[in-house]
Amino acid sequence: MRIGELSRQSQVSVATIKYYLREGLLPAGVASAANQADYTEEHLRRLRLIRALIGVGGLPVARAREVLAAVDAREVAPHHLLGMAQYAIAPPVDAAAEDPDRRRARAEVLELVRRHGWQVDPEAGGIDRVAEAVSALRALGQDDLLELLDTYAEAAAAVARRELAVVVARRDPAAMVEGVVIGTVLGEALLTGLRLLAEQDASARRLGAAPGADGGKPPG
Amino acid sequence: MRIGELSRQSQVSVATIKYYLREGLLPAGVASAANQADYTEEHLRRLRLIRALIGVGGLPVARAREVLAAVDAREVAPHHLLGMAQYAIAPPVDAAAEDPDRRRARAEVLELVRRHGWQVDPEAGGIDRVAEAVSALRALGQDDLLELLDTYAEAAAAVARRELAVVVARRDPAAMVEGVVIGTVLGEALLTGLRLLAEQDASARRLGAAPGADGGKPPG
Repeated sequence: MRIGELSRQSQVSVATIKYYLREGLLPAGVASAANQADYTEEHLRRLRLIRALIGVGGLPVARAREVLAAVDAREVAPHHLLGMAQYAIAPPVDAAAEDPDRRRARAEVLELVRRHGWQVDPEAGGIDRVAEAVSALRALGQDDLLELLDTYAEAAAAVARRELAVVVARRDPAAMVEGVVIGTVLGEALLTGLRLLAEQDASARRLGAAPGADGGKPPG
Repeated sequence: MRIGELSRQSQVSVATIKYYLREGLLPAGVASAANQADYTEEHLRRLRLIRALIGVGGLPVARAREVLAAVDAREVAPHHLLGMAQYAIAPPVDAAAEDPDRRRARAEVLELVRRHGWQVDPEAGGIDRVAEAVSALRALGQDDLLELLDTYAEAAAAVARRELAVVVARRDPAAMVEGVVIGTVLGEALLTGLRLLAEQDASARRLGAAPGADGGKPPG
């Protein structure tokens, strides 16, 4: 197909496709005539993966290029591939920015990881994210909310096992990476949005709004 | 205490405290001398709640004022109070922005809510958040990831029940609202950060990295 058709089918503008070609994210088409190139289904699939990495995952072009190179290098083990996709989305926080409270929180998170028997890279970006929230809760005097850490960890583990089963069932490495990137970003939106709704339900049950009531919308 | 001491203890600058006084978020101190006012522990507690609403929850001043008014109006039922705090953090999305795919996704989310027996306001902001992610997943051809919706809902429900138990145990309405606001925002960071770690663990288990291996960090 021509670049115009590739744009139509992928819903990515011709200018953006040309940018990806220049940046080496998308392989060149086969020259079919002067100033014309032919693109295939393979280009369409690659374009979808690029959009997942950059558009959904918010990755800079250089990091997207690394992930794509790993997808193309067939000798990379699937676990490394998925880890790399995840690492690209949630890179570690600069350790220089840490204060003593943050280091203490980091140690607590590593202990939580050990307690749950998780096989996790101690440098993983998720550890910093959790440590940041732990030290913020403590600074705000909300220590009772920290009792929920294991509850969150169990919920996260239950979700992660099912997510990975769906992604692994895809078999194709590019589709798996696509699933990890999109699933990490949009799965987070699903989980956090559903948590807001579940909290509303828990509040209605616990504090006794009548069934069918307005679910806690502010009066008036 | 003087305003300088209030600033020191709350770690909120004098300029910001004066701004909250002008905006009516913080009640005036008791005049102790010309151009001097005295502040109490009550002011300190209120200041902490204001920081939770504006600093952590990201609420505009006008919305923070509404939540504070509800906290002060002791006749408001706790469920309405918590609902109002949550509503302030996650307001409904403008319905005019919806397209047919989004309306379809909204209907699916409402069906999910019905299936789980949740008592939820159909206008709740969480519904839009979930519907947005559902229609984005479908547009990206990731329909298999949508099979996880019930898994996410169950995890969210388990977490929400425990969160509410902790917040309700506080009894004081202002502390409860503070807990809902801070817990909603920072609990989300805890849950999503732990999910990243749990995914890394699930990947290591399922795809067979050796225990103690680097957990999926990109090679080299």
